[in-house]
Amino acid sequence: MSESTVLVLGSDPPPKLDRLAGRARVIYADETSLAGLLPTADVLLAWDFTSDAIREAWPESGPRPRWVHTASAGVDRLLCPALIADDTLVTNARGVFEQPIAEYVAGLVIAMAKDFYGTWELQRQRRWQHRETLRVAGTRAVVVGSGPIGRAIGTTLTALGVKVDLVGRRARADDPEFGLVHPSEALNGLLPEADWVVCAAPLTEATRGLFGKEAFALMPSRARFVNIGRGQLVVEKDLVEALRGWRIAAAALDVFEQEPLTADSPLWDVPHLIVSPHMSGDTLGWRDALAEQFQDNFDEWAAGRPLRNLVDKRLGYVPVQ
Amino acid sequence: MSESTVLVLGSDPPPKLDRLAGRARVIYADETSLAGLLPTADVLLAWDFTSDAIREAWPESGPRPRWVHTASAGVDRLLCPALIADDTLVTNARGVFEQPIAEYVAGLVIAMAKDFYGTWELQRQRRWQHRETLRVAGTRAVVVGSGPIGRAIGTTLTALGVKVDLVGRRARADDPEFGLVHPSEALNGLLPEADWVVCAAPLTEATRGLFGKEAFALMPSRARFVNIGRGQLVVEKDLVEALRGWRIAAAALDVFEQEPLTADSPLWDVPHLIVSPHMSGDTLGWRDALAEQFQDNFDEWAAGRPLRNLVDKRLGYVPVQ
Repeated sequence: MSESTVLVLGSDPPPKLDRLAGRARVIYADETSLAGLLPTADVLLAWDFTSDAIREAWPESGPRPRWVHTASAGVDRLLCPALIADDTLVTNARGVFEQPIAEYVAGLVIAMAKDFYGTWELQRQRRWQHRETLRVAGTRAVVVGSGPIGRAIGTTLTALGVKVDLVGRRARADDPEFGLVHPSEALNGLLPEADWVVCAAPLTEATRGLFGKEAFALMPSRARFVNIGRGQLVVEKDLVEALRGWRIAAAALDVFEQEPLTADSPLWDVPHLIVSPHMSGDTLGWRDALAEQFQDNFDEWAAGRPLRNLVDKRLGYVPVQ
Repeated sequence: MSESTVLVLGSDPPPKLDRLAGRARVIYADETSLAGLLPTADVLLAWDFTSDAIREAWPESGPRPRWVHTASAGVDRLLCPALIADDTLVTNARGVFEQPIAEYVAGLVIAMAKDFYGTWELQRQRRWQHRETLRVAGTRAVVVGSGPIGRAIGTTLTALGVKVDLVGRRARADDPEFGLVHPSEALNGLLPEADWVVCAAPLTEATRGLFGKEAFALMPSRARFVNIGRGQLVVEKDLVEALRGWRIAAAALDVFEQEPLTADSPLWDVPHLIVSPHMSGDTLGWRDALAEQFQDNFDEWAAGRPLRNLVDKRLGYVPVQ
């Protein structure tokens, strides 16, 4: 096999790609230079996965990469009709973020149950004020998204004694991990019983705005909502209204319609809303793990073997086997 | 059996003891009236378990209750030489607090690993600042205390993928839950490897001041310390010094040498110290659960059957079977 050209979008910081030395020419693009360089590349690594540039620059015709790997779980930022239609393979970072995100969500659930946020505010005020809090074991969670991240969240909450209903696109009656996976049509029937609603769905045309006025109206007033998927899965103004109107008890958002949040965003100080800067999956060493994963997949590519974490471009995610 | 007299210390709020109606005369004492009423009672319920009055009022001789039940896990507030020496039975609230406390500790561990406190401070400042945080799975915890609370904490952390070393008074090689339980002499050898050190020991003469200068010096600088046992297990000034000197990374205290903390306590604003008002085990309904548990044990007492949760007064806790 002749030397491949690997085009990397983003270099702040650059990935460690030592293992490609002598096997691939690595060139870097930014959002401006991407369109001009795409026709020269065999492989595109979407290292900066927060950019919309790939979707915007993807050629309608002519030479283009035969493989695109994104250093993220979601592929919503890069998929466009031309990329979906052609035969370019798309792979993602499945395997890197699941466990950290599951821990993060479990921590949020406990923090909300035990009112850590109230405790910290009282500490600031130097006030000793005992309260009774919630037991996590025995509560019910609806986890939306039956991919690896939703599954890891479901498994971790189950280990804490939470009864978990996992919701996917389609029903599965004999799921090896959860037994039953509910279909998306069942969601509205599950929401009224939920203590916790966790959004871990991929962003697709079917899921955009999934959590809006109607969903929040179906949740009980004790419900607490967590989104670690993509900001566009939630209609932020409807969530804010639900919180301000005490329609639901609390929420935590790690992802937003527009990122980063600017200092004047109204979301920073909505009552009972926890805001974090899209970091739920990012543990120390995550960038190295992403670079290793890409290089492992490059080994498959170079050997002519099937790629791992192949995205079904029409579905918009890697189907669970 | 003739009608018993049940003396209750504390009535704010009073316990719901409906099931004693017609079977026992229930009278209430406060700290002042306790000494005068003790000789008239068959059973003493230490409903206010934060008082030292029992220890101070316990008679050296003459009539006294034959059974003392405390609405707490720890019995350190009531044991005194005369009570240890006589044949009065002592029982505790084992079974009520374990799961809530284990959840609380797991939440603190994740909150510290994921820097929830930093995130919340940045939210107050309306600042979007991405950070890399810690993965919980694969870290190591030393849990000191092999009673039901320490065990529940160990089990919950294990479910999160943490490698747990449980430390009890004596070694056990074939523990049904943990396999190995380390003896107290092994603690100093375990501390240097710990990411998390959790104190869930009973307060006895052997454990008072267990976590002081020497213990903090043995912990690695990444270690985070949690105390949900009793305040006197920790030498607070040594902990403050360890935190101010960056000797260890962070700590969370739910219990204190003096409770409640007054507004002028220096503990409220030590860097990287989380302060909560002795509430880790107190979930909604906890008081009703405590009253039910006492009444269940009263049924045993009235029937002449062995009491549950019998404290070994010399050890200062209920031995694990």
